[in-house]
Formats: sequence, C-alpha cells, structure tokens
Amino acid sequence: MNKEILIEVHKTIEPYIHKTLVLTSQAINAIAECELFFKCENFQKMGAFKMRGATYAALQLSDEQRIKGIVTHSSGNMAQAVSLAAQSLGIPAYIVMPENAPQVKKDAVKGYGGIITEVRSTIEARQAAADEIVTDKGAHFIHPSNDMDVILGQGTAAYELLSDHNNLDYICTPVGGGGLLAGTALNAFYFGEGCKTIAGEPFNADDAYRSLESGVIEKNDTADTIADGLRTHLGDINFPIIQQYVDKIIRVEEDEIINAMRLIWERMKIIIEPSCAVPLAAIIREKASFKNQKVGIILSGGNVDLGNLPF
Amino acid sequence: MNKEILIEVHKTIEPYIHKTLVLTSQAINAIAECELFFKCENFQKMGAFKMRGATYAALQLSDEQRIKGIVTHSSGNMAQAVSLAAQSLGIPAYIVMPENAPQVKKDAVKGYGGIITEVRSTIEARQAAADEIVTDKGAHFIHPSNDMDVILGQGTAAYELLSDHNNLDYICTPVGGGGLLAGTALNAFYFGEGCKTIAGEPFNADDAYRSLESGVIEKNDTADTIADGLRTHLGDINFPIIQQYVDKIIRVEEDEIINAMRLIWERMKIIIEPSCAVPLAAIIREKASFKNQKVGIILSGGNVDLGNLPF
Repeated sequence: MNKEILIEVHKTIEPYIHKTLVLTSQAINAIAECELFFKCENFQKMGAFKMRGATYAALQLSDEQRIKGIVTHSSGNMAQAVSLAAQSLGIPAYIVMPENAPQVKKDAVKGYGGIITEVRSTIEARQAAADEIVTDKGAHFIHPSNDMDVILGQGTAAYELLSDHNNLDYICTPVGGGGLLAGTALNAFYFGEGCKTIAGEPFNADDAYRSLESGVIEKNDTADTIADGLRTHLGDINFPIIQQYVDKIIRVEEDEIINAMRLIWERMKIIIEPSCAVPLAAIIREKASFKNQKVGIILSGGNVDLGNLPF
Repeated sequence: MNKEILIEVHKTIEPYIHKTLVLTSQAINAIAECELFFKCENFQKMGAFKMRGATYAALQLSDEQRIKGIVTHSSGNMAQAVSLAAQSLGIPAYIVMPENAPQVKKDAVKGYGGIITEVRSTIEARQAAADEIVTDKGAHFIHPSNDMDVILGQGTAAYELLSDHNNLDYICTPVGGGGLLAGTALNAFYFGEGCKTIAGEPFNADDAYRSLESGVIEKNDTADTIADGLRTHLGDINFPIIQQYVDKIIRVEEDEIINAMRLIWERMKIIIEPSCAVPLAAIIREKASFKNQKVGIILSGGNVDLGNLPF
C-alpha cells in the first residue's frame, strides 16, 4: 500500500459518486466539548458510503465477468449499493438479504434493479445463498466488507474529508464488518498528519472490540442492537489492517446511540440511521479524551425506515 | 425600494446568520419533471429563515429601545428567532405563544432566554397579549410577518439563492403571514432575470389565495392544516407587495403536503417541517406548468417535534 494507490482509487470512482458535504454544528460541539467535522455520507448516492466500495469493486471486473453479474449479501445498504453500481454499469446484480431487513431497503434494492433472495438473518445462511448464486449464475461475489477493493473504495470518504480538513486529530467511524474502518484507517495513516483512527461499536455487538483484545476474529452470539448495520463481524482481510492502524474502539450503550441519533436529527436537521450515530455516541461517552480536539466523523448513511423510529 | 437597499439589508445581517446551502436531488427532479434548487433554511440558525427577519428588525432599534427589549407573537419559529436575535444582542425578548405550539419550540424559546406568555390559539388573543407587554414593559413589538424590516430580512434567503443561481425561472415559498413571500418577491424582481415568484398554500388555510382573488385581506375561519406555520393571514404591509410582485398561489391538499415532506426526508435525508413541504407539493401538483424549468424552493425550516410525526 502507498499514497499513490489511494489517490488512484479515489480518481477511479470520482465520476461515479458524490463528493459529500462536511457539516459542522456549534450546538453539538458545545455538548461534545470538541470540534466535530461530519462527513455526510448520508447524502451519498443511494444514501450511504457503501456506494463507494461497491462501485470500486464493480469497476475492477473484466468484460467477461461483467456479463455474468455480481452478487452480495447485506443487511441493507451494501445491497442497494451493489444494485445501483451494477445498474450504472448495465450488469446484473443478485442480492441476498436477511428476511428481517427494513422494508425501505428492500424496496430500494428493487428500485435499482437488484434481484433479491431472502434468507434467515444469520451470516451462515447469507453466505450459503450467495455461494449458490455464484455456482448457478457464474456471478462474481463482492463481500460487503472483507474485500480489498471494497475496503479501498470505502476509504475514499476519509480521503475526501482529509483533503478538506487536513489537520484532524482523529477520525471516527462505526465498525460492523470492518470495511469502512479499515479503509478509513489506511487513508488517515497516509494523508492525516498524526490523525488517529478510532471506531464506535455497540456493547451489544462488540465483536470488533473483543477481536482487538484477543488478537483473533471474535463473533457475536447475539447482536441485539438498534444499529442494524453493525451486527456483522470482521474478516481476515480487514482485521490485520484494523489491528495495525486503528487506535481504539469505544463501546456504547443502546440509549447513548439513540440519544446521539436524536441530537443529530434535532440540531443538524439531517437524517442519519442508527448505525451512523454510534461514533458521536462514542465521542460523547469519552469526551474527556477528546477535549478541544478536531474530530472527523464519517456519517455513514441515512436509510431509515420512517415508519419505525426509536423516538 | 431599489436594488441598493436590498443589497445593504443583506450586508447588515450577513455577520449574524448562516449563508445556507443550496441542495439538489436528481430523484426529486425526476418526480417533479423540473430542475429544483432547495435553499436550506432548515440549516439556518435556530432552524428557520425567521432568524433573518428577526435579526434585521432587532438591528434597527435604538440603544434606548434595546434596553426595553422586544416582543412578538408566534406559533413557533418567529418566537425562537426573536429570542435568539435578542440573546445575541444582549436584550430581553418577550414571546407570546399559542398554548398548543409544539413542545420542542417552547423548549427552544426558553433555551434562547425568551420569556414566554402562553395564550389561546387565536390571532386576536395573541395580539392582545403582545399589546399588554408593549404597554407594561415598553418593549418594541416585532410582528412576525407584517413589518417592513422583517420582510426585508426574510427576503435575504432569496437574495442568496439568486446570487448562487441567477437563472431561475421561478422561486416558490410557502405563504402563511406573508413576510417570506413578500421579501422573496422583491428580491426575485430586482435580482432574478425574469424570475417569477409563486407560493404554495394549504387548501385548509387558503386565505392568501382568496385575498389575491378578492383584492382584500381574507382570513381563515378555521385552519386545520398540518402546516402549522401557515395558519395566519396576510397584513396591510406585505399584501400590496404580494399583489404587485407575486405571480400566483397554488393550493395543496394535506396528503400532498405529507407526501412531499416524506419525499424530502427520504430522498434528500434532511429534516424539514410540514409548512416547508408545501412549495414542493405545489410544484408536483401543477408539474405540467413547470416542465423542465429551473425552480428555486425556499425550504423554510426544520423544527419538527420528532415525537409527533405524520408518518
């Protein structure tokens, strides 16, 4: 890995994505007692940063691979991202989704032309269904987080954030499957001037925290968290990057996630999904560590089921 | 009135307000079949355009008037705006609010140091309470919409929108008391190149539409609309401006307002209040008239009671 590769990745996907806004809020700075820079990936195409990784991965396929299409499994946003990326390249997208995924996300996948297979909400069931599609259709599997092209694509949000604000002390992301966190950490290492990468994670799905403690990839027996994008675990490609480049993971309670989500809705007037509120919850929980520092937060997505809000 | 006055008004309040973003949405353009430019006053200080008018009016007071403070009556946003404008100038603010105003707005007024008097939800009761405060405290009354300084202040949102996009065919605002509409129409006339000003109004509170038809200021017997900021009627200062400079008012049904609100929440990932969705509802309702035109919309505010949403 080097700087030039990361610059090239950004250049490759730039025509296909939005360069999202960075917003600030004096009211939230006052509460968090530091200076926050929110990279608004909720304004990204299809409403989440996953568009970046899906697009970069799809662009790496050969012409022959493109004809057969791509397949992924996802609790929601990667499903939409792969569908939209495939649609824009004119290739088929096969999407394995857990049957309990929010309806708004299923509808969006269909809207982007994705072909859905619904399965039980376990990682094993999802992977089995995806493997079957690979065998049957010859489609190329894109893992939602444990794929180097996906990791590189997700990292471009941090690349843009650091291009606009090169003096950040920290960048904080949520951690679920680990793709965004690993990609962010690489960009913070190469383009931040002493910028540390940290993550927020729900106590109720704290596999990444435990993985850093134990040195092996831990899983969640249960993952009863409102942050539905963060229920998955790390993979063998992103875990070593996270071990090497991530400073720490801060765990937060469910009520802290909901409070942070409400704070962003009420004070910033923007819609973010619960997973996306986890970094702010983490910063507020440990605010003594960040006092007067400049902290970038990747607001990862805004695809919320408005009929099912926690307030 | 002339261009120089409007430029001077903007220069006067510029240090006290945010220059808000202009956002676009390809998805909503496709639905509305025109090119929309959303001026995001939901991102304005205290969450609404009213900060502009309140600030400009407060800045016109003499030192002697400032000591005695300012008073207004408002269903919500002007209450917050006058409170915050007063707080930033270090002067007292007395706010008359209808007792059924959303709790989030009452809390915000208190947070900005405003002193609240609650009254029944009629225009007469509000005005009587405000008059009493003027007599008792010697405070200066700022009408939320029928005041030339307020009108000039509100118009600066359109001034900024036209500075960024000088080729708009239309600017559309909601119409309640008429301050925003009158101020917008003046700026569209002087700075738009053939730009017409139009407004959206609920059928259930269509006093402004009827006033333009009859040529006299009409009132609403009832005003049972979700667009709680639009229940008031025009005044003798803004009505002549609206008669002279406004092209037309389009009325919309309640379900059209809720659908437009949901569309903006889901597609743009931003929080707007119901009153604020009325212009988009109007454009979509009469979309044949706006086909392929460039239409600016003033998104007036984002102060919503999250515990009481229409979806």
